Amino acid sequence: MERAQKILTNAIVLTMDGDYNIYEPGAVAVGAQQILAAGPQDVILKQYEAEEVLDCGGKVLLPGFINAHTHVPMTLLRGLADDLRLDVWLMGYMMPVEREFVTPDFVRLGTKLACAEFIRSGITCFNDMYYFEDAVAEATNEAGLRAVVGQTVMKYPAPDASSYEIAISLCEDLIKKWKGHPLIIPAIAPHAVYTTTPEILTTLCDMAKKFDVPLHFHVSETLSEVENLRQEQGMPVIPYVRKFGMLETKLIAAHCVHVDEGEIRSMQHAGAGIAHNPSSNLKLASGFAPIQRMLELNANVGIGTDGTASNNDLDMIDEVRLASFVAKAVAGDPTALPARTALAMATCIGAKALHIDDITGSLEKGKRADLILLDISPLHNQPRFRRDSENIYAQIIYASKSTDITDVMVDGRWLMREHKLLTLNEEELIREAGVVAAEIDRFLKNREESVLSKLIAIGGAAEEESFEVQAKVRVEDLEPVLAALQAPEIQIVRTRNYHEFDTYFNFSDREQGRLRYREDEFIGKNGEITSVRSRLTLIGEPESAHLEESEKIMLSRSRYLAPAVHSLRFYNEYFKPVELVEIEKNRLRYLVKFRDTEFFINLDKVTKPKLGKFVEIKSRTWSRQDAQNKTVLMRELLATLGLSSLPLVTKDYIHLVEEL
Amino acid sequence: MERAQKILTNAIVLTMDGDYNIYEPGAVAVGAQQILAAGPQDVILKQYEAEEVLDCGGKVLLPGFINAHTHVPMTLLRGLADDLRLDVWLMGYMMPVEREFVTPDFVRLGTKLACAEFIRSGITCFNDMYYFEDAVAEATNEAGLRAVVGQTVMKYPAPDASSYEIAISLCEDLIKKWKGHPLIIPAIAPHAVYTTTPEILTTLCDMAKKFDVPLHFHVSETLSEVENLRQEQGMPVIPYVRKFGMLETKLIAAHCVHVDEGEIRSMQHAGAGIAHNPSSNLKLASGFAPIQRMLELNANVGIGTDGTASNNDLDMIDEVRLASFVAKAVAGDPTALPARTALAMATCIGAKALHIDDITGSLEKGKRADLILLDISPLHNQPRFRRDSENIYAQIIYASKSTDITDVMVDGRWLMREHKLLTLNEEELIREAGVVAAEIDRFLKNREESVLSKLIAIGGAAEEESFEVQAKVRVEDLEPVLAALQAPEIQIVRTRNYHEFDTYFNFSDREQGRLRYREDEFIGKNGEITSVRSRLTLIGEPESAHLEESEKIMLSRSRYLAPAVHSLRFYNEYFKPVELVEIEKNRLRYLVKFRDTEFFINLDKVTKPKLGKFVEIKSRTWSRQDAQNKTVLMRELLATLGLSSLPLVTKDYIHLVEEL
Repeated sequence: MERAQKILTNAIVLTMDGDYNIYEPGAVAVGAQQILAAGPQDVILKQYEAEEVLDCGGKVLLPGFINAHTHVPMTLLRGLADDLRLDVWLMGYMMPVEREFVTPDFVRLGTKLACAEFIRSGITCFNDMYYFEDAVAEATNEAGLRAVVGQTVMKYPAPDASSYEIAISLCEDLIKKWKGHPLIIPAIAPHAVYTTTPEILTTLCDMAKKFDVPLHFHVSETLSEVENLRQEQGMPVIPYVRKFGMLETKLIAAHCVHVDEGEIRSMQHAGAGIAHNPSSNLKLASGFAPIQRMLELNANVGIGTDGTASNNDLDMIDEVRLASFVAKAVAGDPTALPARTALAMATCIGAKALHIDDITGSLEKGKRADLILLDISPLHNQPRFRRDSENIYAQIIYASKSTDITDVMVDGRWLMREHKLLTLNEEELIREAGVVAAEIDRFLKNREESVLSKLIAIGGAAEEESFEVQAKVRVEDLEPVLAALQAPEIQIVRTRNYHEFDTYFNFSDREQGRLRYREDEFIGKNGEITSVRSRLTLIGEPESAHLEESEKIMLSRSRYLAPAVHSLRFYNEYFKPVELVEIEKNRLRYLVKFRDTEFFINLDKVTKPKLGKFVEIKSRTWSRQDAQNKTVLMRELLATLGLSSLPLVTKDYIHLVEEL
Repeated sequence: MERAQKILTNAIVLTMDGDYNIYEPGAVAVGAQQILAAGPQDVILKQYEAEEVLDCGGKVLLPGFINAHTHVPMTLLRGLADDLRLDVWLMGYMMPVEREFVTPDFVRLGTKLACAEFIRSGITCFNDMYYFEDAVAEATNEAGLRAVVGQTVMKYPAPDASSYEIAISLCEDLIKKWKGHPLIIPAIAPHAVYTTTPEILTTLCDMAKKFDVPLHFHVSETLSEVENLRQEQGMPVIPYVRKFGMLETKLIAAHCVHVDEGEIRSMQHAGAGIAHNPSSNLKLASGFAPIQRMLELNANVGIGTDGTASNNDLDMIDEVRLASFVAKAVAGDPTALPARTALAMATCIGAKALHIDDITGSLEKGKRADLILLDISPLHNQPRFRRDSENIYAQIIYASKSTDITDVMVDGRWLMREHKLLTLNEEELIREAGVVAAEIDRFLKNREESVLSKLIAIGGAAEEESFEVQAKVRVEDLEPVLAALQAPEIQIVRTRNYHEFDTYFNFSDREQGRLRYREDEFIGKNGEITSVRSRLTLIGEPESAHLEESEKIMLSRSRYLAPAVHSLRFYNEYFKPVELVEIEKNRLRYLVKFRDTEFFINLDKVTKPKLGKFVEIKSRTWSRQDAQNKTVLMRELLATLGLSSLPLVTKDYIHLVEEL
């Protein structure tokens, strides 16, 4: 007789191994962390003995579910805002709340709340992407679950990184700390194509290859993501990111709603994992992922819950059922994505998608003991037909509820027995979550009249680069500057002439920033108006905390840009500013290259009110380091233009006007 | 102080009334059956006193869910067959099992099993369509639920009616027995356009108007249903059934997946109810109903679970969430079908769809006390955001589970308290269901090699009329018959000449019937072959129980017709018959009108083997009465053709050949 730590007997054992073996009555022998054997009960009992022999009472014993894509700390934001347009939801609620509230403590609490729900839902392993991912790893390890934890990198300032350079360094810290841990697999998570830059992607792909860790990335979640990239780069997401080496990493591509046949084949060929999130894709109206085609092409497609903010629960059985239902309806074929395949996506195929099928995803000798017990005796799962042993898959996928899951084991350790959580205190977590929710409610009530959320609500707004580098001087005459622009060090890329009519909306709460309504008349060679455009820009107050000793040139503040499709009257009535300020100017705008760096140079004549003539040198960037480099260059450029002796005007035109 | 029987206090009361009033803390005063008042707790407690005052402990108190379309006895068939094509599922599994097993006892047991699941799922009222509907009504009344019970009428023989005339009379019996009952609303349920006849629809619409009862009908569930009707009648379902007066009845149109804008407007204008069944429509790949458009046009759309055989559970919260998710994705708009509207579809709008909003669907004075308590304190529903009181709708629709429902009241009577069922014995029901399932398993194992299911599995088969009226005589010469066909009483509608090559597949189990592979060569005026067609027909043995004294002419047996797209060789290998029998004949086929009735007259010369010459008069029908009428006419037609002195040949050619 061989020695096991635990033997689980009298179960319907679904191994989800290569042959989809089912044993009834079946048994599983478990060692310290590993599965020693799964098989018919009489065979296992003849071969193994153990101190702990558990009679499963005829329940189904199967591998724990693998949640292929989620954002666990967002569990604290469940139900914060629903039934909204994606931009309103994301930029009006999620991002502002995250910027205000997301700290390591927030992340730890949200992770534990999610882990408790995961355990109850039979999830033994998940693939996460969020901020302060080290705190996610710590809390997950304490809860006893297995996880791939991906540190987010975006070009925008994030709760855990005021610049993307910091976020990148967090990735490396995370990998070094957790690589080789029995439960935690560190990963790198560039957020998406539209929230990163080529430089970020190149750096992170190199890092993922160097450390051999998974790279977790949002791919083609919405049609606009793909259409914008096609317009800008002439190709969809997968061919684009291939250029940065992403297909050579252990890629986990989340969503893939709008991928084409070629992209699916590329990902399959590269061994990439795909994480399908049916609830989120439906609830946010992202679309229907071509799951049936992915499976036909033998791609590794797992199933994820996404975050609770867009789901709104972490119920894996619901998610798997929905994946099957939607695949059938989209394919127009009720035989599409049958129950066994759906369950495989949540277990053995899901493990492949996360590049961890060597350690989990099935009940096979040598894999870690990640398993669950599911009770099929409740009323809603009766009667049971037995003529085909495969009927059991349909019972699980189409009729079981997550509340039928009674026991959960990860890495050989029980996390739930008979519905009781063993590693987490639910009452305490619920109480603490209630306190956070009340704070968020107060915060949102206070900004109920937020100009930004109102701006977003009427048509979306794109966030612009957060670092501005700007040098402005007042001049008596623009002619000498025009002459200086001909210097050989300055290469003129483009010239435009505008007549600009700005109307600034001021609000009683200065924290809201100012909203600028601008009409640009483009002036042609002969002084004629060739076209007109209208834009809204919400300009935040500069963050004094970010001002440096180079403060006169560089500043950091939020800027949101939106096309203005309505009239000035409409916006006036809609935003109800306390004051309107009008500024009119003529602007000669040069895009120049100076020491291989692009700058805008504005030659402005402010005519209403009569402020005079100015020269502005401007640049915007997502990178703090880049901004600092540019401040140096800008001083050299001022000298080249013969303007370095003049005092810098550090105020915007609107501030100068208000001082009049 | 006024007197109430029960007062429910300390609840979040969602009234779902015209103004969507929410009271927190709220209370509801209940009389014998009715709601006396719903309002803020302090107001209710000042006005009412009662012996039973229940503290709801902060749970949500809302109207019970209304399940707008289901087939409750099919709960006994849950998980019988999944992931199959519709025809294989329906004709290969559901219908054969129903014909064999569905009795009043089966229906009572299935109904009680469903009622137990309904109560646990918060459903207080459902709209049913099945056979032996009187037994559904009895069992529902015993369980204490409210229901609209619709007796099914189809042209096919059904478990409770060997002909549709019998089914129609069952409708009238049901109405007379149950009309005016406090819980049961009898209804008439013609199955669908493709399973009924114009005569059936006219009769039933008249009956529905006469007795003022709901008419429950499957409408445009699949695309083929609509396309076939367009081909045959030049219009889709709603304009077609309007001709029979259906829009003047209290119509409940189930599914409506493939209805157009005009049909939606027609139904809305007529005050018809629509029952949307998202799980069933996805799982059977029927398609995506245009729910968002229906709501925009102000149609009364309720939500149904359909039967468990196509769902596979009766979980109303799952169903409502799915309705919302799918509507968003189909509309490409995450603001489509928001949580409050979704909940309204499951309550107040659902009641309108069933034409019973005068008695249920909201918590308002005078309505019956049909209500449930839902606990939002569990982990998967935390935290709770309170800044907008409407957030509660999203909590229920997007994050609650049916297992969070703790208490259910119908008509002022508690059916569940603290998760315990008070009117049904679950253990007993589960045990009995297990016995039935084992019997069905045995039955299906025995017919695993069914020719019909194999026929259906390879491309579908249409059931033909079950009653055949046939008179055949052997003649020496066909010329006198050709002359007699010119008689003035006989109007020749059409003539065709075929060369028919039949191959009969015989099976060891005679109960399987015979499969006939027929190639028809169409012969033109000059003896040339103008076209060829191949068909498979599965011909059942005549049911001796159905033979009458007119047996020589009329018989009842199953016939399934399928186009033969493969070769004879393929079918031979696929069906593996024990014997092949070939018959070749030349057939002159007349379609004639005789006394306003159409008959086929075949003048056959059987050449292989040399059986001789025959005259056959034939007709097929779904109606027993119609068949009997035709036997009389057929004898007159034989006389007109000068053939009445000859003995009738009661055997098919295949039987004559086998006797050689």
